[in-house]
Amino acid sequence: MSAFKSLKDHFQTIDNFAHLHAICGWDAAAMMPSGGNEARSRAMAELSVHVHSLKTQPQLAEWFDKASDESLSVDEVAQLREMKRNWQMSNIIPKELVEASSLAGSKCEHAWRTQRTNNDWQGFAKNWQPVVALSQEEAQIRAQATGLSPYDAMLGIYEPGTSSEALTHTFDNVKQWLPNLIDQVIEKQSKESIILPSGTFDTSKQKALGLEIMKLLQFDFTHGRLDESVHPFCGGVPTDVRLTTRYDENEFMQSLMGIVHETGHARYEQGLPKALAGNPSGTARSMGIHESQSLFFEMQMGRSAPFIHHLSQSAAKHFPEHDAQLFESSNLNKLYTRVKKDFIRVDADELTYPAHVILRFEIERDLINGNISYQDVPELWDSKMQSYLGLSTAGNFKNGCMQDIHWTDGSFGYFPSYTLGAMYAAQFMAAMKKTVDVDAVLRSGELTPIFDWLSSNIWSKGSLLTTDELVKQATGETLNAEHFKQHLMNRYL
Amino acid sequence: MSAFKSLKDHFQTIDNFAHLHAICGWDAAAMMPSGGNEARSRAMAELSVHVHSLKTQPQLAEWFDKASDESLSVDEVAQLREMKRNWQMSNIIPKELVEASSLAGSKCEHAWRTQRTNNDWQGFAKNWQPVVALSQEEAQIRAQATGLSPYDAMLGIYEPGTSSEALTHTFDNVKQWLPNLIDQVIEKQSKESIILPSGTFDTSKQKALGLEIMKLLQFDFTHGRLDESVHPFCGGVPTDVRLTTRYDENEFMQSLMGIVHETGHARYEQGLPKALAGNPSGTARSMGIHESQSLFFEMQMGRSAPFIHHLSQSAAKHFPEHDAQLFESSNLNKLYTRVKKDFIRVDADELTYPAHVILRFEIERDLINGNISYQDVPELWDSKMQSYLGLSTAGNFKNGCMQDIHWTDGSFGYFPSYTLGAMYAAQFMAAMKKTVDVDAVLRSGELTPIFDWLSSNIWSKGSLLTTDELVKQATGETLNAEHFKQHLMNRYL
Ligand SMILES: [Zn+2]
Ligand SMILES: [Zn+2]
Repeated sequence: MSAFKSLKDHFQTIDNFAHLHAICGWDAAAMMPSGGNEARSRAMAELSVHVHSLKTQPQLAEWFDKASDESLSVDEVAQLREMKRNWQMSNIIPKELVEASSLAGSKCEHAWRTQRTNNDWQGFAKNWQPVVALSQEEAQIRAQATGLSPYDAMLGIYEPGTSSEALTHTFDNVKQWLPNLIDQVIEKQSKESIILPSGTFDTSKQKALGLEIMKLLQFDFTHGRLDESVHPFCGGVPTDVRLTTRYDENEFMQSLMGIVHETGHARYEQGLPKALAGNPSGTARSMGIHESQSLFFEMQMGRSAPFIHHLSQSAAKHFPEHDAQLFESSNLNKLYTRVKKDFIRVDADELTYPAHVILRFEIERDLINGNISYQDVPELWDSKMQSYLGLSTAGNFKNGCMQDIHWTDGSFGYFPSYTLGAMYAAQFMAAMKKTVDVDAVLRSGELTPIFDWLSSNIWSKGSLLTTDELVKQATGETLNAEHFKQHLMNRYL
Repeated sequence: MSAFKSLKDHFQTIDNFAHLHAICGWDAAAMMPSGGNEARSRAMAELSVHVHSLKTQPQLAEWFDKASDESLSVDEVAQLREMKRNWQMSNIIPKELVEASSLAGSKCEHAWRTQRTNNDWQGFAKNWQPVVALSQEEAQIRAQATGLSPYDAMLGIYEPGTSSEALTHTFDNVKQWLPNLIDQVIEKQSKESIILPSGTFDTSKQKALGLEIMKLLQFDFTHGRLDESVHPFCGGVPTDVRLTTRYDENEFMQSLMGIVHETGHARYEQGLPKALAGNPSGTARSMGIHESQSLFFEMQMGRSAPFIHHLSQSAAKHFPEHDAQLFESSNLNKLYTRVKKDFIRVDADELTYPAHVILRFEIERDLINGNISYQDVPELWDSKMQSYLGLSTAGNFKNGCMQDIHWTDGSFGYFPSYTLGAMYAAQFMAAMKKTVDVDAVLRSGELTPIFDWLSSNIWSKGSLLTTDELVKQATGETLNAEHFKQHLMNRYL
């Protein structure tokens, strides 16, 4: 057997175990009763250890050596590159550091759930200091192995090929126009009248409405499900994608748009190349590209006037007992594009969201590169919030630097993906509009041409191309944040 | 580390992977969309291979050798015995035979689903011949390793310690009185008037009713769930037991009593000794003892007059739109104890069920011991059905020897467990009544004294005792089928 074939078989084995992890992870979030947690955690930890041992088996180095001399097709070269990237990711960091980081992260995250509620920065900082120190150590090791700066090496886990220099440049540009744009939009919206949801929205009706919209979005129900969990996510495996949402009886809008968002993630997974199933080259390109699909669904399609018209009609049908004025397109449109300066990223609207991300990017970049200390973070947070959104978080840790889970377990380098995703989504829409009459398609309710474009340009490519190649082939250029700016100005001004 | 401790750790690792298998297996039956099947099957097969490799690692033999010389407590000796039994079960059969049997079984079972519908004995026999031959080969190997007869060695997989000689003796006795008893009861019941369910029974109401009865039965919902599947079962793990049922809109009775049955299985699992979690000695004693718990719930408690009174009240409450006469205790009682000679085991009532099992036991015993050929089975089936239940299955293969899944994949030796379970259940009830006023407890609706007895005598013992020891400690004697006979005569005459 060729070394390349041996590698493919081995990564298929790894994927088989990853499948079990994905399903049991979904189950833990969506199905498992509380008493099942201890045994489940032990079983999942055992599985992680086994997968790690598969990824670090000594014969892999030999196979990678040999495979590089074998005659491979262009696609196979890409497959080899992605297997190697995956392998290197798992082998760069010494086992002891992986274990120490995992332990410190778990401890910090666990305590954070209470400390955040209590606004207890001092208590949190004690657990967070080792998390930061171990992440810095990890970043140093990754930097040495890749020749990148420490923070860029961390970015590479989520966004291979992205540099903080390019990101800084892009985000600095955003910072020049965004705060002013936000002010203009808030001023404009302050004169609008709006009807807010009131009364009770039965969750079983919300579910029926969500399923109807998933059908409109051509979610494949023979390869996936919709369920409930406290923190909505898109899990499972490409042949069986598990979406979750959370229903609030007091309103239907957040869950509904959450389902649109997760359906974007889900269709990307469902649309990945079947021929590369089980291989790293057949998985999603990056976190940013993944988010570009969910945000294409949520922001580009989902908040467009013709799509909101569909939501309006469906919602009115499912909630006949409510005042029909609430569901009118013009009102839903206002509700879904409301802009507000606020503290919490996960609740932020489309327009203020980038400010939340840029702030985090700047802080984590300087932290991981060792230019600031973890103790500087609250003050930096406050001053940046003041400058980008005009809000002070002095002394307000729970709604400031303690609000996110990401940093508690050392996931530094993840945050930029959200805004990269928003930017790519806008760029994809601009490119799509050159060949597809998107508004007419959205009005028609038969959205196949949109999905055909996404499928052939993004989903079916898996990780065969680099992000830059993927975006360039799809849109004629690499990342160009101008499309995002234009999109925001068109929608909000 | 002592060899005993090494073994315990190793079996905990095996159990961790078994946990993933149990949850993903439940998911495949209760949650998974059809398109997820291929990748899931591959992942589960990979997991099975891994678990098998863990169970057959060479160092285990050495550890078992050493551990037998270590100084162990009485409980630890039992733990060692069960680990060794588990290990031997997995190591007796050569890998090639395991694979050949698995392949032949899958092929036969898959084709059987269509062949049964088409009453195609000839087609089935072609696939079944190798299944029988490979099972005979397996039985020979197990016989050589254990010193038992081939069929007894297969019995030992499901009912360690049970011999076909003892079973034959017990069942021959049943055959002397059962056919006549069945005739008497049918004659008696023919004079009764009865109200049958009619109209529609909303499945969400059936579910609410089922959950209410599970609460009455003190199912622990922090360690389990109720869901739906085509073939109801009790799966999951002891800390997270996954029950399933199937609802029929045309009647509520079968699903309801099915839930009572599966809750019996579930409470056994939930009640297994926590200190031995993850060890073979902490698992259920045998298939027959497992079934004794489900049948204790379904037959001993579930079909008793005071329990049916609770069902009556709950059902009437959940279905107020139906004629209240249907739910009257006296009517439900008649419905739930109706006796009918019929072809299908899984639909059989309590009284005719043993006839179905004895017939299968006699055929599979002679088949595995090589005294008859697979080609003789239809004729034997017909003649035994005629003699035990007065029904002919000549030419009616689908409702005769092709009706069960068990033989299609080579699970020879399993069938006796059903009737052993019924017999043990009756014996446990007779013993319990010596110290617990069972009727008064059932009437009160606070069933704790019953569960306390089951917990201390059965559930908490796991596999620390042999079946004979367990039953003797609980009831003062080993299996005594007289209790079952008395129970049937009390209930049905
Ligand atoms: Zn997302
Ligand atoms: Zn059962």
